[in-house]
Parts: sequence; structure tokens; C-alpha cells
Amino acid sequence: MLASHPNPKTREALVSDLARDHGDSMLMLVLDGLGGYRSPDRDSELALARTQNLNQLATTSALGLHDPVGWTITVGSGVGHLALFGYDPLVYHVGRGALIAAGIGFELRPGDVAARVNLCTLAPDGTIVDRRASRIPTTETAEVCRVLNEHGQLENAEFFLIPELDYRALLVLRGEGLEGEVTDTDPQRVGVQPLPARARTPGSGRTVELITELLDRARGLLADRAQGNFLLLRGFDTYRELPGFPERYKLRAAALASYPTYLGVARLLGFPTWQVAGPAEAVEALPSLLRDGMDFIFVHVKTTDAAGEDGDLEGKIAAIEHIDALVPSILDSGVQVVAITGDHSTPTQVATHTWHPVPVLLHGGSAPADGLGRFDEAHCRKGSLGRFPAQELMQQMLAAAGRLATYNA
Amino acid sequence: MLASHPNPKTREALVSDLARDHGDSMLMLVLDGLGGYRSPDRDSELALARTQNLNQLATTSALGLHDPVGWTITVGSGVGHLALFGYDPLVYHVGRGALIAAGIGFELRPGDVAARVNLCTLAPDGTIVDRRASRIPTTETAEVCRVLNEHGQLENAEFFLIPELDYRALLVLRGEGLEGEVTDTDPQRVGVQPLPARARTPGSGRTVELITELLDRARGLLADRAQGNFLLLRGFDTYRELPGFPERYKLRAAALASYPTYLGVARLLGFPTWQVAGPAEAVEALPSLLRDGMDFIFVHVKTTDAAGEDGDLEGKIAAIEHIDALVPSILDSGVQVVAITGDHSTPTQVATHTWHPVPVLLHGGSAPADGLGRFDEAHCRKGSLGRFPAQELMQQMLAAAGRLATYNA
Repeated sequence: MLASHPNPKTREALVSDLARDHGDSMLMLVLDGLGGYRSPDRDSELALARTQNLNQLATTSALGLHDPVGWTITVGSGVGHLALFGYDPLVYHVGRGALIAAGIGFELRPGDVAARVNLCTLAPDGTIVDRRASRIPTTETAEVCRVLNEHGQLENAEFFLIPELDYRALLVLRGEGLEGEVTDTDPQRVGVQPLPARARTPGSGRTVELITELLDRARGLLADRAQGNFLLLRGFDTYRELPGFPERYKLRAAALASYPTYLGVARLLGFPTWQVAGPAEAVEALPSLLRDGMDFIFVHVKTTDAAGEDGDLEGKIAAIEHIDALVPSILDSGVQVVAITGDHSTPTQVATHTWHPVPVLLHGGSAPADGLGRFDEAHCRKGSLGRFPAQELMQQMLAAAGRLATYNA
Repeated sequence: MLASHPNPKTREALVSDLARDHGDSMLMLVLDGLGGYRSPDRDSELALARTQNLNQLATTSALGLHDPVGWTITVGSGVGHLALFGYDPLVYHVGRGALIAAGIGFELRPGDVAARVNLCTLAPDGTIVDRRASRIPTTETAEVCRVLNEHGQLENAEFFLIPELDYRALLVLRGEGLEGEVTDTDPQRVGVQPLPARARTPGSGRTVELITELLDRARGLLADRAQGNFLLLRGFDTYRELPGFPERYKLRAAALASYPTYLGVARLLGFPTWQVAGPAEAVEALPSLLRDGMDFIFVHVKTTDAAGEDGDLEGKIAAIEHIDALVPSILDSGVQVVAITGDHSTPTQVATHTWHPVPVLLHGGSAPADGLGRFDEAHCRKGSLGRFPAQELMQQMLAAAGRLATYNA
């Protein structure tokens, strides 16, 4: 009789089993929305930028392209970062609300329902004039939150509206038996009315009732405001805990970012986080973090994506060139394995997140020297890393850093 | 209403269903640890070797790269060979002990727990001085095994210590209700004490007790020895039978190797095996094996890996050039489809097994002629086979050999 061979091991479990607590130190430098593409009229931002240092680094690095989540899928930044950290977003469901809560330090409890809020401006006929309320500043958003928190009480449930950055805020509903399978009220365009929230599961009906009640109150309480007289809600989810990143990969990890959402992703995964003014400050901090024994440092750069979303070709090029100027300081910091990539593509031709694969450069440790001499999408396509799912970048970094033990039967 | 479509057929089952018992004869020539990579300072061994015959063969062959088990995973040789033979190591759990037992012809019984043994040398303070006991010869290892087998009896269980090659041996525990989920006692470095064995499952507690008892005895019995005064154990597993290779692919198969472990893998899969002095003797045997009706011949070459592990660049190049010189005889043998590859990479820059993808050359049958003119990693990256999991090499060989029937629904 043949003994059975039950329970095939997953690749994810294998990588965690093989991870060891020593090896090279690592930096993951994520330029948000880095990827672009060559359209009939012009080349990508990365190809057009003057990036002498990145190109020189590319000569002694392995290049490739990754697909956030998978081939042809466009992702939001939260999902893109989960994938970069090796958490398959199809397995680990994390709502945008949970990411923002973590980012601003609001402590969610299991069972809370959280959603992302944009303050918007409605016309007298109830149609949306501006989905971002003329980008009103954080102080004004905080005032709106205060008014609603004070005067908007719900029956048999609590809610919290917490300002984030500019016109953005977080909504948290807390009560018995709330589910988070609720559709967005943000129609993602102007000239139409906000959508009604709808339950995707029978158990989410109570959540929809509370939201509808809250939005009715908000319409009255904010009616006198010229800008920011209503709320658009999206990304509802119930909060679920995630397995910790430091334990999973046996790393001492640190996250540096200027923008709260990315610190939030890292906090959800159990990183200590530091808010920095920008990439230069993050790079300056590298030597002391390494001296303190950190072996995985995540640095997030927002400017590339912001320019991409604005369709600002010169701005995105300038953001890339600013990073290029920091490359010598990165190499001098003593960090041993460096990955430079994005969480998704934001080509200025399209001025939004897209599905295009994202360039990645891997330097140091046992990473091959592809000798390609330029860091852009076309050269990354020829690189030895090939094209791979973003969820596999962590294991590629660990392999190059000598942090994955040999798999012996 | 649409009827449901449950239970998708696995690719593995499809290949086995389609395999037919006629077609071209095949040779899989495995140069252990063949793969390398270009580092910033120099190119890979395969790129540096003078391989006139392999390069000429590459012109009329299909090239590619394979990943043993998967992207970024470093494998031991047992795991690497299982993958080459089409057995996904994440599905088929085979311990190193089972591989060695098969290699030295010790007949395991289902339920036996087997582990790999290295004789090591401990300092008086109990720390490891040499993980390989100065590579003492097989005769001395046999003497240590004899002493322990005679004087080391356990209560209510049997054990067998069998010498393998040099400082290596096999430990088999036989008794009621033993499970093999036990951690290695080999810490994989010197200057520290051997690790205590620990049970990964409650059912493995009894195994740990027996091992602890045995190691206590060994410490006393071997105390007077200058070299090889203790045992390091790793790769514990319970023996499970594997589905047979000849049945699965409808082949008459033969394995030729000089090193017992590789004959062991083949025996576990139901191949007849021949121990040879080296690759030249194996190549000489090809015509008669083909005349005897063999249609799949596996030849294993150890010298490439041995030089790789020693960090011996010239030695690994020489081992590759030695194989290059045998290529004309291989082609003259009359074998119709030839795959030349490795089971993993062992770059001399790193002097150990690594994760780097492994070059593969496929010649004959319906394999394309890529015309690339050189067999090395860089050219394999451009080849028509692309980059694929090692587990799929067998089906690629069968396809080229016309041994996979058409899949008609």
C-alpha cells in the first residue's frame, strides 16, 4: 500500500519555514506609482528621466518587472504594498479603512467596520460638483469631523470620524453584529448624485441602515458649507488582524514614509514606523537604523505617484531625478541588498493607476549583475528577474540576502 | 442552469494520462550544481568554460532556465532531483534519510523514521570544531557505526546506523508509533553546541526521547576519539512510498551515477540503477542500454557541484569542460532526445547551493533549434523554453520525444 502524501505545502509556508534570522541587511525603496509605459507619442517617465546613478547601479544589478497582485490587475496603494510585503491580497482581505486607521493611529477593534471618507462638494440639486471639496485643508476637515461626531449620534451604535490628510477622513462604526460588505457611495465621477450604500450580504443590512442614518444627518449639519458639504464613502471592511511581518520573515523591520497610509500598512504588519518629511530624510536615517540592528527597511516615496495622478510629466520626471540624486547616499549607508521599485504604475499619459508591470532593480547579495546599464521599463523587460507577481519580491530579496535556508527533503 | 465543473484535473494527472509507451529515446544528463551567475566581478563558470561541443549543440537545441521547486528557493540535491523527475517536492514529502537509505540499499519499512548523520568533532567544552570530522574515510565511519550498533541498544525500539560515504551515515529508528516531525540537531555552523532534537508534532515526542537517549550513549561511547566523536542529525522523516516513475510515464528507465544518493532517488522511483566510476563510463554504457530497450536514461555527474561547493572556479570549469569532451560520444550513442541541465545552482562565488535558475539545453525530437550558439545562463535566458519550474522538465522532454498523446476532450 502506498502511504499517502497529504497536504501539499504552500509556497508561502515554505518561504516562512526557510527564512532565517541572519543574512544581509535589506532596503526596499518604493517609489509610489513608479511604472509607466511607452505610448505612440512618447516614452515612459523613467526612460525620459536623467538618472545617471540609477543607470550605473543597473549595470551591477538584476532587473525585472513585477505585476502587483497579477497580470493586468490595477491596484490601489494599500493592496500594492501588501503584495510587495508578500501578503497575497487575494488571501488577506484588508480594507482601505483599516489601512487608514492604522496610518493615523486609530486603534481598530476586531469587528469594527471602517471606511475611507472624502469630503465632497454637492450642488443645490444634490449632484457632486467636486469629489475632493477643492482639496480643503486638514484643519477644515477636522472641523467637519468635530461637528458630526458631536451632533450625529446613532441609535445602538457608536461612530468615529477622524480627519486624515487634506479632504480625507476615516469613518469607523462600532456596535454589535456589524458586517462590512457594503458598496461604495462614491460614484467616482462628478455631475451625478452620491450612490446609496447597499448591502452585499444579508448580515451587512444593519451597517447600511446606520450609514444611511449618518449620511442623512450629515446632509443637514453640513448644508451651510460652501465646500465640503457632504461625505463620499468607500472601501468598507471589517477589521481582521494580519500575521506579523517580522515574525514571518524573522526580520527586524522599520518603515519610513511621509504619508500616513503607508505607515498604516506597515503598522498593520507589525513594523515600527517613523514619519519623515521626505525621501532625503529617510535616506539620512539609514546608517543609524542599520547600527540599531534593523535588517529590513522600507522607505516610501509619494511624489512620483502624485505627479503621475496629475498627469504631470515634468513633475514625475523631477521626482525620479530627485531619487536618483540620493542613490550614492543609499549605497554609502552600508545597506547590503537594495530593491528599488513601485507599488503599481501611474503613467502620466493616463493620469491614474494602471495595470502596467512595474520596474524593479535588485542590487547586492547574490543578485546577478545583468549589465543592462539603464533602469527603465524596456531594460527591465530584458532583466534576469523576468516578470513575476509582486507577492514574490520579498522572497527574491530574502534569497539575494542569503536569508532563505536550503530546502532539503 | 449551468451544471458545476468540480475537481479540475491536475496537470500532473493529465501528463500521466497522455504518456504513451513509444517514441524517441531520452537522456537526462544532470551536472549537479551546474548553474551559476554573473556577479559584478565576473561571469558564471559555464560562460567562462571553453565548451566548443556544447556551444555547437546549442545551435540546434532549445535553451531555457528552470527553477528547482520554484522561484528563489534553494534546494538540496534530493529535492532538486525529485523535481527534475517531475515529482513536486511540495506534494511528495521525501526525507533525506529515505533518499540515503535507498542509495545505500537499506530497505526501509513504512513507518520507519530515518535521518541523515554527519560524524562531527566536538571540543572538550562540547562545541562543534568540525561539522564533517575532518572528512574521515568510510572505513572509520563504519567502525563508529559498528560500536554504536553493538553497544547503544534502546528500550522498546530498534535502531540502525549504516555508513554511507566518508563521514556520512544513515540513522533508522524502527518501533511502534514513531513520527518523524523532529528538528535537526545540526546547527549548520561551528563554535556552538549541537542543538537538542525537538518534536514539531505531539506524536513525535517518542522519537525525540529515543534520539536523546541514543545521543547520550554516543557521547560516552565515542568520547576517546580524536575525530568523529559525535553525531549531527538532520532531515528526519517517516518513510512514505512514491508512485513509480516507469509506470507514471510508461518508460523503461535506467539511472547511472557514481554517488549513492542519486542512485537512491532513482531507486525510490523504481528505476534500475548502475553505479559508475564517472561520466565517461556512463556515456560508454549508453549504446548497450539503448540496445536493451531503455527509453529513459538518467546520468548524474557530481564533480560540478563538488567544485562549486569548494568555491573552486578552475575546478568547476574543468568539470564542465570534461563533460563537453563527451558530447560527441553522447550524440554517437544513438540516443534521440538529450536534456543537459543541473539540479540546482552552486556558483563558486557563493560556494554553496543557491536559488539562481538553472540552464537547460534540450536537443532532438521536436525540440526547436534556437540557434543561440552558446550554452550559458545568459543565452538560456533568451531561449525558447523560457523559464519554468523544474517539475515541468520531464513533460518537456516527453513532448519533444513524441511521447505525449494528443489531448482530445
